[in-house]
Amino acid sequence: MSDRCRLSHRARQATDQPISYLMGETIARPELISLAAGFVDPETLPIDVVAEATAEIFADRELAQAALQYGTTPGELELREAILARHLAADAMTAGEAAIDVEQLVLTAGSNQLLHLIGETLIDPGDIVICASPCYFVYVGTLQGLGARVLGVAADEQGLIPAALEESLQRLQASGELSRVKAIYVASYYDNPTGATIPASRRQEILELAQRFRTDGVIHVIDDVAYRELGYYGDDEPSFRSFDDAGETVIHVGSFSKSFSPGLRIGWAILPPPLVEPIGNQKGNMDFGSPRLNQRIMATVFRRGLYDAHVAKIRASYRVKLEATLAAMETHFGSLAEVDWIRARGGLYTWVTLPEAIDTGSSGPLFARALDEGVLYVPGVHCYPQEGAPIRTNTLRLSFGVQSPETIEQGVAALARAVAEVLAEGAIAP
Amino acid sequence: MSDRCRLSHRARQATDQPISYLMGETIARPELISLAAGFVDPETLPIDVVAEATAEIFADRELAQAALQYGTTPGELELREAILARHLAADAMTAGEAAIDVEQLVLTAGSNQLLHLIGETLIDPGDIVICASPCYFVYVGTLQGLGARVLGVAADEQGLIPAALEESLQRLQASGELSRVKAIYVASYYDNPTGATIPASRRQEILELAQRFRTDGVIHVIDDVAYRELGYYGDDEPSFRSFDDAGETVIHVGSFSKSFSPGLRIGWAILPPPLVEPIGNQKGNMDFGSPRLNQRIMATVFRRGLYDAHVAKIRASYRVKLEATLAAMETHFGSLAEVDWIRARGGLYTWVTLPEAIDTGSSGPLFARALDEGVLYVPGVHCYPQEGAPIRTNTLRLSFGVQSPETIEQGVAALARAVAEVLAEGAIAP
Repeated sequence: MSDRCRLSHRARQATDQPISYLMGETIARPELISLAAGFVDPETLPIDVVAEATAEIFADRELAQAALQYGTTPGELELREAILARHLAADAMTAGEAAIDVEQLVLTAGSNQLLHLIGETLIDPGDIVICASPCYFVYVGTLQGLGARVLGVAADEQGLIPAALEESLQRLQASGELSRVKAIYVASYYDNPTGATIPASRRQEILELAQRFRTDGVIHVIDDVAYRELGYYGDDEPSFRSFDDAGETVIHVGSFSKSFSPGLRIGWAILPPPLVEPIGNQKGNMDFGSPRLNQRIMATVFRRGLYDAHVAKIRASYRVKLEATLAAMETHFGSLAEVDWIRARGGLYTWVTLPEAIDTGSSGPLFARALDEGVLYVPGVHCYPQEGAPIRTNTLRLSFGVQSPETIEQGVAALARAVAEVLAEGAIAP
Repeated sequence: MSDRCRLSHRARQATDQPISYLMGETIARPELISLAAGFVDPETLPIDVVAEATAEIFADRELAQAALQYGTTPGELELREAILARHLAADAMTAGEAAIDVEQLVLTAGSNQLLHLIGETLIDPGDIVICASPCYFVYVGTLQGLGARVLGVAADEQGLIPAALEESLQRLQASGELSRVKAIYVASYYDNPTGATIPASRRQEILELAQRFRTDGVIHVIDDVAYRELGYYGDDEPSFRSFDDAGETVIHVGSFSKSFSPGLRIGWAILPPPLVEPIGNQKGNMDFGSPRLNQRIMATVFRRGLYDAHVAKIRASYRVKLEATLAAMETHFGSLAEVDWIRARGGLYTWVTLPEAIDTGSSGPLFARALDEGVLYVPGVHCYPQEGAPIRTNTLRLSFGVQSPETIEQGVAALARAVAEVLAEGAIAP
């Protein structure tokens, strides 16, 4: 029947997100312990903070009128200024040192809309985007939907490996394809799906490679910092943007979905100046700007100084969950030499590598066993781009944002039982 | 410098909205009476209603948690059900008679995002969309940005003229281009920019033409009902959807931006079943669904029965402004035989046709005179598709949503002085 609708090429390329069925399983089988969905913890959502900000807005007719009226396409200036100030503080730079003007800040419907707009603004079919392998699979899907070739480059517990990136770029140069490379995408803090953070020295190397291999135009580094606020040990790394002196290479993309509330759907970016107008045009044509009410709420949260306290609270809460995850992995997998996982220091994920013979895919033996044992995970295969570094079918992602320390321990124990059963049976990938 | 960014073809095609500069003028020169911007009246925004709904949500931890968490891509079921019920009541049909399931309802960031998603889902470069001439210019821009040919068909005070549509379709058939026609776009109630409403008999004729001329697939009728709630005399017309028995031709697109609050950014559609999944995929890839907080607020407004009273209030308020506009036109232009305007019965606009010699464009003589006299309007030329029915340079749009009856009278008087001056000078289009 949908043939009769004569969908566009683009719509025919687009597919449902590969893990939709996992979400479905999570909802349909509430008895399962889901370590799959990357939701944030409902228990630490900023209810009182948003209630306070909203009450302030609706107590003043002028503020309320503004919140309910159309806003501007780039979004509320007060909020963009607050975000810029926080970004500069995190990188310990002045606005002058960083060479960022507030006009380069833009607000969107979550950072995902921003990533999508960047794709639309830069990508023609056949263009290449390089990313870590594995990578944030939602964006891989978006880029492929735009006709991009997404090329995976090897990564480790410190994220994308510069030597592997250089090798890829050299290969593309040799094959005459370098001019099709439009961007390198990195999620540089507590990566989804691996939990890895890229250290400062690697950031510089990656940025230098992007600049060294540019041909007729910029190879942008899209730095997705959605999880930067979710570091649980007080450490941080300077952003890619802080190394980009000319300010034309890095697109710095942030979000309040993880650190505050996904239900507000506020993402933001610091754009290189030449991209401000094109991305603004795409955004303006689509929705005239994101909801002003939500931006006024968030601006009020900053003005009243409520954001820091909330972030401190969720860091403390997620740290307990992260430590429960790593402790449970140690308890249940520590003695298995062929099992490894990333010791994340923040974020909502860890990435597990099992013995090579175990296929973690949803039609493989482990997934069914794990469901029987009562736990759900994301098979690693969904997180790899189709091209570039090889897909490792013995990997999986665990998310610990929603479960309690107790159910995390139970979930990891269930996973360990499933792995033991599969190993005992000698069942290997079909 | 933006060359170095190597923008996508699409981004290079996209341009700023043509009337951005008018918005700029409005803001930069507050002494002007703006009859240009199509803003809603800030004085009748639903401040108390939203305050009440928000207070209810934040008084209950479970409701508040839900509002601040991720929602689903199609949006909150409670709100979709409320919208469907209201739609059925307006068309005086049962769900069974209309053959609409709530799964066909989808919520977006204003109806503009929905129109954009429809374009992305249906349009490949070179595809044709037919619309009234003049037409809602923002969507013409969106469609052109997707590479569509937008073809204008003659319209009068009852909107798109079926005989002109038939003639266009016949011409396209003769030239072998009929299979490229993907959709007919109509804003069938109190149209932007003209204020025209399409009567029931024309709706049937237009729908029949869409169905009669279909080739290998459906020619969709996109019915934009953004202004349906803004009828000021108790009359209404059945929707296009009510005539679409098979339910596969009409895409019915609504919005709360005009009838309630643009700052919430909630649009909605009733989709033909084969489009539900493709449009959901586009939407999901872009932003995972629109803000749940806003949808919870709107659902609460419906549940508490606050919506009807608000709509009644704004109808009364806008009716006064509409009547002030039409009365002022009668007073100041009634004696000029060559001047005509549409006697709208709702919405926020009227469309004025001046003597043919007067070029209303922003670089023509009238626009400058009007600014001198203190009034801003939208030149008609911005509202015409480039192809099809001829562009009439002696037309303009007046918006009366924001001004008071007094300033509307002053603004129309100023416009009349400007017209008289231009006529007296014998100044004609350069």
